Amino acid sequence: MKCRTCGQPAIINLRQHKLALCRTHFLDWLPEQTQRFIHHYRMFTLDDRILVAVSGGKDSLSLWDMLTRLGYHADGLYIGLGVLGDGFDYSAESQRLAEQFAAQRGLKLHVVDVKATYGATIPELAVISHRGQDKPCSVCGLVKRYIMNRTAYEGGYTVLATGHNLDDEAAVLMQNTLTWSGGYLVRQAPVLPASGLGLARKVKPVCRIYERELAAYALASGIEYVYDECPHAVGSNTLWYKDILNQMEEKRPGLKLQYYLSFLQAKDDGLFAAQAAQADELHACEKCGQPTTAPGLCSFCRLWDRVRQSREA
Amino acid sequence: MKCRTCGQPAIINLRQHKLALCRTHFLDWLPEQTQRFIHHYRMFTLDDRILVAVSGGKDSLSLWDMLTRLGYHADGLYIGLGVLGDGFDYSAESQRLAEQFAAQRGLKLHVVDVKATYGATIPELAVISHRGQDKPCSVCGLVKRYIMNRTAYEGGYTVLATGHNLDDEAAVLMQNTLTWSGGYLVRQAPVLPASGLGLARKVKPVCRIYERELAAYALASGIEYVYDECPHAVGSNTLWYKDILNQMEEKRPGLKLQYYLSFLQAKDDGLFAAQAAQADELHACEKCGQPTTAPGLCSFCRLWDRVRQSREA
Repeated sequence: MKCRTCGQPAIINLRQHKLALCRTHFLDWLPEQTQRFIHHYRMFTLDDRILVAVSGGKDSLSLWDMLTRLGYHADGLYIGLGVLGDGFDYSAESQRLAEQFAAQRGLKLHVVDVKATYGATIPELAVISHRGQDKPCSVCGLVKRYIMNRTAYEGGYTVLATGHNLDDEAAVLMQNTLTWSGGYLVRQAPVLPASGLGLARKVKPVCRIYERELAAYALASGIEYVYDECPHAVGSNTLWYKDILNQMEEKRPGLKLQYYLSFLQAKDDGLFAAQAAQADELHACEKCGQPTTAPGLCSFCRLWDRVRQSREA
Repeated sequence: MKCRTCGQPAIINLRQHKLALCRTHFLDWLPEQTQRFIHHYRMFTLDDRILVAVSGGKDSLSLWDMLTRLGYHADGLYIGLGVLGDGFDYSAESQRLAEQFAAQRGLKLHVVDVKATYGATIPELAVISHRGQDKPCSVCGLVKRYIMNRTAYEGGYTVLATGHNLDDEAAVLMQNTLTWSGGYLVRQAPVLPASGLGLARKVKPVCRIYERELAAYALASGIEYVYDECPHAVGSNTLWYKDILNQMEEKRPGLKLQYYLSFLQAKDDGLFAAQAAQADELHACEKCGQPTTAPGLCSFCRLWDRVRQSREA
């Protein structure tokens, strides 16, 4: 297999694009694709101050790398969740790799450790709060969304970027269609606009890039990242949907890309009724001031209240 | 496993409903479920004259059986397609079983043989018309829709019923979402209303019944039916989607039912924008007078024109 651009040996074959590329041209091609998508969805410009949520994995580190290569002003945010793996400290290793990435490139990385800042790790929180049965994933999502938004808002960032890839988005889309969750379908988008009350603009610049392309990008550009999935994700619904979609993609190269892009196109073409797209009304949390959909305390503050009550009991 | 109603040995375990039933109570339960759905979607009443499209397979014969057991006035329509199987005459065997079913119950069956009436079998038509590449399925769909509608209209039937089951509908739904075909999604429904210009009202009374339940019904009530899929369906997209959905159902009993019913519910709740639901304007075909979406000849008449031209050439 030879590079379509220069004829040198290819390092990757992108079946869905019928395109093989060598290391050099793949490392050019992926940021170009990302840039096109950023432009098409008007995600941000060179004037924006971007906060990239980095987990230490291939998706977010590749994203951060591409954004800085493309000339964007992008700082990082690492959230220490306190997750342990089988025989190694998953969160500590992820943090080390995120910090190493930033240090090597002279980039600024914010670190918020959940236990040090708020008093408990994510697995501890899941047990104390009885939320999400045995799985800490629901609590983890809530805590991360809160910290990402607050850090972006308080740091004066104009946009918050996450490393959701095509495989993530296609799996979520499948999940949303299996139950036809109207609200989720309507809100699933590459850009979620900011709201006056302190909700940061959220963007997913690599949501049309395959997971394997991001892994190849990280490897080819020498980015050291955590290989393992989060130990709590093993056996999750999302991984199950990803397996099914991979099986379908195997038979029909490009299926995932078509699935997601045709969904975005259909939405742009007005497939869904407008009333379903109405955003929830936002209130300021009585305690922390952060935006919340119901009056009173936000779900993050209610979570920590439960922790306090449980410890006092 | 015991029948939930009477405690006798069960013949079927409906995992998605957590319900096991004996032969007698299953043969009561399935028509009851069907009746509920007919009522919920206001498909037809005891005053309607129903034409059931029967293929000789389990779905349509079970449907016809249930409709007559429920007291509806339902005649049958068998369309002779001229399809040959591997070592046996698929269409002839299907016709024999449809005729046997009708004769045993004293029911009226219309038979329209495509070759005898119009001059070529479906496989011949597919080759002559170059439509649908190697597969006659697209031509077959066109011809069947035409003959069903025309027979219903000319016979004074108020409604045309087909045996589409849940597995069929879920597979089509998956196909429609993988490409986000707005028009198809909006039109996929248990009832398609009649149109003034001679388009019969179409209903799918068993579209929320699993394929295996219809097979069990046919077996338990002694209906002899064609076991094989149409030989041309082997390797089709629809069967591929069915395989994937079966795999998902295996892990999550009830998934297909939830997938389809939540889609119908979301539609009823107004998920899709109204403009997408606008019906195409209909015209009368200049040759046969049947309804068509474009002025001039309908696609059925154009198909036979091509056959004539090709034979004269």
